[in-house]
Amino acid sequence: METNLEKQIKFIIEIDKMKTIFRRTYISDGSRKENDAEHSWHLALMAMVLKDYFPEAIDLLKVIKLVLIHDLVEIYAGDTYLYDEVGNLDKAKREQDAADKLFSMLPYEQSKEFMELWHEFEAKQTDESKFASVIDRLQPLLLNYATKGIAWHQYGISYEQVLNKQTEILQGPKEIAEFVQNIFADLLDKGYLRKQG
Amino acid sequence: METNLEKQIKFIIEIDKMKTIFRRTYISDGSRKENDAEHSWHLALMAMVLKDYFPEAIDLLKVIKLVLIHDLVEIYAGDTYLYDEVGNLDKAKREQDAADKLFSMLPYEQSKEFMELWHEFEAKQTDESKFASVIDRLQPLLLNYATKGIAWHQYGISYEQVLNKQTEILQGPKEIAEFVQNIFADLLDKGYLRKQG
Repeated sequence: METNLEKQIKFIIEIDKMKTIFRRTYISDGSRKENDAEHSWHLALMAMVLKDYFPEAIDLLKVIKLVLIHDLVEIYAGDTYLYDEVGNLDKAKREQDAADKLFSMLPYEQSKEFMELWHEFEAKQTDESKFASVIDRLQPLLLNYATKGIAWHQYGISYEQVLNKQTEILQGPKEIAEFVQNIFADLLDKGYLRKQG
Repeated sequence: METNLEKQIKFIIEIDKMKTIFRRTYISDGSRKENDAEHSWHLALMAMVLKDYFPEAIDLLKVIKLVLIHDLVEIYAGDTYLYDEVGNLDKAKREQDAADKLFSMLPYEQSKEFMELWHEFEAKQTDESKFASVIDRLQPLLLNYATKGIAWHQYGISYEQVLNKQTEILQGPKEIAEFVQNIFADLLDKGYLRKQG
């Protein structure tokens, strides 16, 4: 029989694989793509830095937990690019299977907590998960801006495609939404993104 | 005049450099060294997973904030290997200068909060910073165990040197301390670490 601690240590070593799951976005110096562990750390720190733009009653610990665990399922399900229409068709099923496999490594109560957090993030219904979604969209936008849109150029992504994915931000805090609208004007102006056709 | 949000966005892009600061420890598949962003994410998740071994009154949000920001100063000061005696002589001064430079990018109240968190982590006086220190020591130990001690072999680190750095863990929660003592016996047994002389 494994102790709870032994299970938890195995889980901690297993999730190290997040460092080998690469996203499409480049890190800010443009030298290579970003992995899921780095992305999740960046979001957690953004939650700390940007918390005052969100409702005062927001549970910051919950927001940080959501972003720390939101991509763990990609250890088995892989990263699905936001603009990959085919890959997004069976994403929910692949990720649920991955969550079942990964979280069941933990002691029962904790596996339940992690599963609930992941579902809360995915459902985007609570204030905390909406906050988490805003920063999850904002972070790659900032990295794409810093790298002159190299990932967008590489994958042939248009201005309209990116704009269509900003719902969470545009429905979020006014000051952040306005900031992002200015970035969009600038992205077009500088040629980092191009309109279709 | 920059708005607070503009300052915060610049800070968020600046700290992306954490993804290019490499530590001596290898990730669990042994393919390459780990960077500071990945390490910090891993610690934050470990705090979530291991919180029940620490006093019930512990402020988990504080612990997570501490580990998320504890290595930010390395963006300018670089990573100083735990076993680098010369590098550790002027580490405090280099890191304080780095903290002044980095945190002053933030709006005043926030820069103060980040500086205080970093000092709290460094001082290891509060329960939260002790918890943070335990997982900061435990994480590279687990990665070294998973990679059969390749970093220790590469840098010629002995059993005694590693054991001497485990004070935080051995003074921490009993169950974790015992687990680590068993790991140490196993590290010696398997030849991942060797005794001096």
